[in-house]
Amino acid sequence: MADRYGITGQSYVGENLKRGSDRIFHSFNSASASNTPWEFFEANTDLVDEACALAKEAFKSFQSTTFNARAAFLRAIADEMEGLGDDLLQVFCLESSLTMARARVERARTLHQLRSFAGWIETGNHCEAIIETSQGGMRPDIRKMMVPTGPIVVFGASNFPLAYSTAGGDTASAMAAGCPVIVKSHPMHAATGELVASSIIRAARATGMPNGVFSNLTASSYEVGEALVLHDAIAGVGFTGSLRGGRALYDLAARRPRPIPVFAEMGSTNPVVFFDGALKDEAIRSEWVVKMTESTSAGVGQFCTNPGLIIAVHSEALTAFVQALSERLNGVQAGDMLHPDIYHKFNQGATDFVYQPGVVELTSGVKTNGFAASSRILEVSGSDFQNNPNLHHEVFGPLSLVVRCADVEQLEAVVASLGGQLTGSLIGVENDFISHSRTIELLKSRVGRLIFNGVPTGVEVNAAMQHGGPYPATTDQRYTAVGVMSIKRWLRPIAFQNCPDDLLPEVLRNENPKGVMRLVNGEFSSRHIE
Amino acid sequence: MADRYGITGQSYVGENLKRGSDRIFHSFNSASASNTPWEFFEANTDLVDEACALAKEAFKSFQSTTFNARAAFLRAIADEMEGLGDDLLQVFCLESSLTMARARVERARTLHQLRSFAGWIETGNHCEAIIETSQGGMRPDIRKMMVPTGPIVVFGASNFPLAYSTAGGDTASAMAAGCPVIVKSHPMHAATGELVASSIIRAARATGMPNGVFSNLTASSYEVGEALVLHDAIAGVGFTGSLRGGRALYDLAARRPRPIPVFAEMGSTNPVVFFDGALKDEAIRSEWVVKMTESTSAGVGQFCTNPGLIIAVHSEALTAFVQALSERLNGVQAGDMLHPDIYHKFNQGATDFVYQPGVVELTSGVKTNGFAASSRILEVSGSDFQNNPNLHHEVFGPLSLVVRCADVEQLEAVVASLGGQLTGSLIGVENDFISHSRTIELLKSRVGRLIFNGVPTGVEVNAAMQHGGPYPATTDQRYTAVGVMSIKRWLRPIAFQNCPDDLLPEVLRNENPKGVMRLVNGEFSSRHIE
Repeated sequence: MADRYGITGQSYVGENLKRGSDRIFHSFNSASASNTPWEFFEANTDLVDEACALAKEAFKSFQSTTFNARAAFLRAIADEMEGLGDDLLQVFCLESSLTMARARVERARTLHQLRSFAGWIETGNHCEAIIETSQGGMRPDIRKMMVPTGPIVVFGASNFPLAYSTAGGDTASAMAAGCPVIVKSHPMHAATGELVASSIIRAARATGMPNGVFSNLTASSYEVGEALVLHDAIAGVGFTGSLRGGRALYDLAARRPRPIPVFAEMGSTNPVVFFDGALKDEAIRSEWVVKMTESTSAGVGQFCTNPGLIIAVHSEALTAFVQALSERLNGVQAGDMLHPDIYHKFNQGATDFVYQPGVVELTSGVKTNGFAASSRILEVSGSDFQNNPNLHHEVFGPLSLVVRCADVEQLEAVVASLGGQLTGSLIGVENDFISHSRTIELLKSRVGRLIFNGVPTGVEVNAAMQHGGPYPATTDQRYTAVGVMSIKRWLRPIAFQNCPDDLLPEVLRNENPKGVMRLVNGEFSSRHIE
Repeated sequence: MADRYGITGQSYVGENLKRGSDRIFHSFNSASASNTPWEFFEANTDLVDEACALAKEAFKSFQSTTFNARAAFLRAIADEMEGLGDDLLQVFCLESSLTMARARVERARTLHQLRSFAGWIETGNHCEAIIETSQGGMRPDIRKMMVPTGPIVVFGASNFPLAYSTAGGDTASAMAAGCPVIVKSHPMHAATGELVASSIIRAARATGMPNGVFSNLTASSYEVGEALVLHDAIAGVGFTGSLRGGRALYDLAARRPRPIPVFAEMGSTNPVVFFDGALKDEAIRSEWVVKMTESTSAGVGQFCTNPGLIIAVHSEALTAFVQALSERLNGVQAGDMLHPDIYHKFNQGATDFVYQPGVVELTSGVKTNGFAASSRILEVSGSDFQNNPNLHHEVFGPLSLVVRCADVEQLEAVVASLGGQLTGSLIGVENDFISHSRTIELLKSRVGRLIFNGVPTGVEVNAAMQHGGPYPATTDQRYTAVGVMSIKRWLRPIAFQNCPDDLLPEVLRNENPKGVMRLVNGEFSSRHIE
């Protein structure tokens, strides 16, 4: 039985809605401190088996669909999502307690992602075609391209109910690659998930995709996720969330009889290093007070690129900067967090930090107002930070720890003590960057994206973006989770040796009507082969 | 104390020769059934720690060497190895019992690999540069490239003492990437390993590379290898060898606090499917008797691409083919295997196969003559094969199992029952390929390289080669172990956001004097950016 939004509370196993079990769970609205109006039926391992069998079968034909056909499917998903209109945005806001403005921005991002992948696969360049011809029979003719790996399981992120969830980057990239997808729906936004899932199912039907190309399993327990990761039909996993959750899935997948890759994006502390030149200039300093206030508090700090660390050498200018930042953040209204769990974990994490040796709080601290959190700035010395592993992990939410270093040497040691990060930012004037090349090198070796004079939040969706980084930011630093290059996670190379031209996949044939860029006998070329 | 070949039996910890422990082991000459003249000192975990600390320190400068400087280093290694002249070939033959002709071919391959990587990194194209400009300030300027991941541990293969060992593909690709390498020397060819290691050390000195860019630990026990894989300084592992060995290292690396990738190439059965059209034509059939004899027996079958399975539908032509092949193989002289262990494992594996239900031997079976093995052809029905997992693994050596299928349907089921493979071959006339598209699709989804009318042995070293495949052929099907693209295993992307042009690495700057191919705002270009 569907309500006015069309929510049934059931799982999509391929195109069929199924309950799985009679166990029920709810999503929650933090703003009103009450359950949302929907009941969700907990999927079970029977539905896992069914969805996996369908995906395996669907892969047989889906992997060979033309790039244009898959692009049409992705565009149809975007159109269907757009067609849901304000319903989708309202459900999004109810389940996330995020603003309508944010809902609109995130929807736009999600549609843009789907359409970007469509555009990228239409070029054929995602195949990374490489051809070595026989040179008149002197050697075998070998032609290599990327092909899809198989059915993929996606675990969405709590903090991006659209852009990193049901039809988010992981799903869009896997489908663009030619891999069927099974989403383990995020229980905090199960209704948003079902609405988006219905769009994918309609789009699949409209564009003639096989049943099983997509499933959406509604579940709040670990059982369903674990069964999916362990299922023999599954070829890979995409995950966005906590270090604990990501590592658990990685460990599970690694001990399968046939191990599979887990691409887990597990957030980070995103250090922002302020150099003296920038801090000493009052105009620049004021500008950064505004920018850092926005970056710390936006989305109630619930971004994986939220700036959790501010690192600088002790100076009066630093004191002035930190004071101004704290004051400005005190003036920012507390925002409802996504879910009580996240709110409680944030408060607990902040409290744990406050009780660490040498940590002082500069903002006015915790305020009690339902599940709304205000931004917090703490401070600690470089020496207290460096040797205390309890201060090195992410506290998910609007919290930044200022690490005040005694001198440049300590600043370098602090940066060298950091684990892998999604981003690292460097704020300075030109001279700062020249005189701190060692700090820059140290930070560079620990991050996926090195930002000059910019905040870490705001992740552009394009081919040059790297959203990833050394462990524990991700389980596989060789890939990005954002931008069209994230399709690489779901592809593997295959070489064809002495294959008759008409049996080759289109992008490897002598004729190259689309002008695909190929590496031919060591030279890049978009031309035909004579 | 070095002998006339310069063998000291010690480990290279950076450029210093060290014993580690007083425990001694020997390499062995199968042909004479006796130890080689050298004593090797077992490295220990102290040497592991020293080599890792040196590699970590060396990485700081080595990662930033210019592509031309690294290319000069790789070419110097090749030149130094060539400079060893016949000494290297003699030691190779003594330790492997392979022929002098093979030694020459393998050395040529090894030198070609080193020089190929030099050529590839000189182009700068291995950086896969991607640039998205700010479009007049509308968005951040983001520029992405591949950078080295860190110190790499290499486990060489017993069967390629040069091409897949000390200065083989894994070492050459990692150093080309900018990663220091620590080799766990293969105990079966520890002298060959030391000679090659000395070449690398001399080349490193001559080209000004930092001490620690290379170490070679001489060890026969598991302890040293395990300590290397678990060491915090290590960023990745290359391995060529058995499924058991590769999986053990994979499991070890996966349970590290900070997991690292293990690229293990673990061999496969390399199925060769014969279609009726080819078998029925007597001229074609005779040609394939010759080719398969050569492919099965070359190198005493000690290749990871040795054809371990011949699959075809029952026919008189198949009987004639298999009979002729067996007879011809009976006439091939038995060859000394690399080592008694390998010889015993081969005999044991073949015996295990012979005792499986329905298996018959067509060749004349085991002959006792020291550690020399003759080629063996066994046969089994499709139904007996399909459901018997004991027949699905590789027997390393000159053995092929003929799987005689009742009909095309059973042939498809047999192919569908196979695990991941490095290669799959299809032998047929044009019509065969058209009428067996389902078989081809099934095989394609299980292999890294699909070969038309060719044997699996003979792995071309070039950019289009894919030497890899789904598990259990490798632990990571997304990469190749052969050809310049194998450099990808040791690289990760990093994005620079709003980085001043003069602080960017050369390949990402606006000026592009080398004409590196870059993806700029969605279009491939080797030009400057205005």
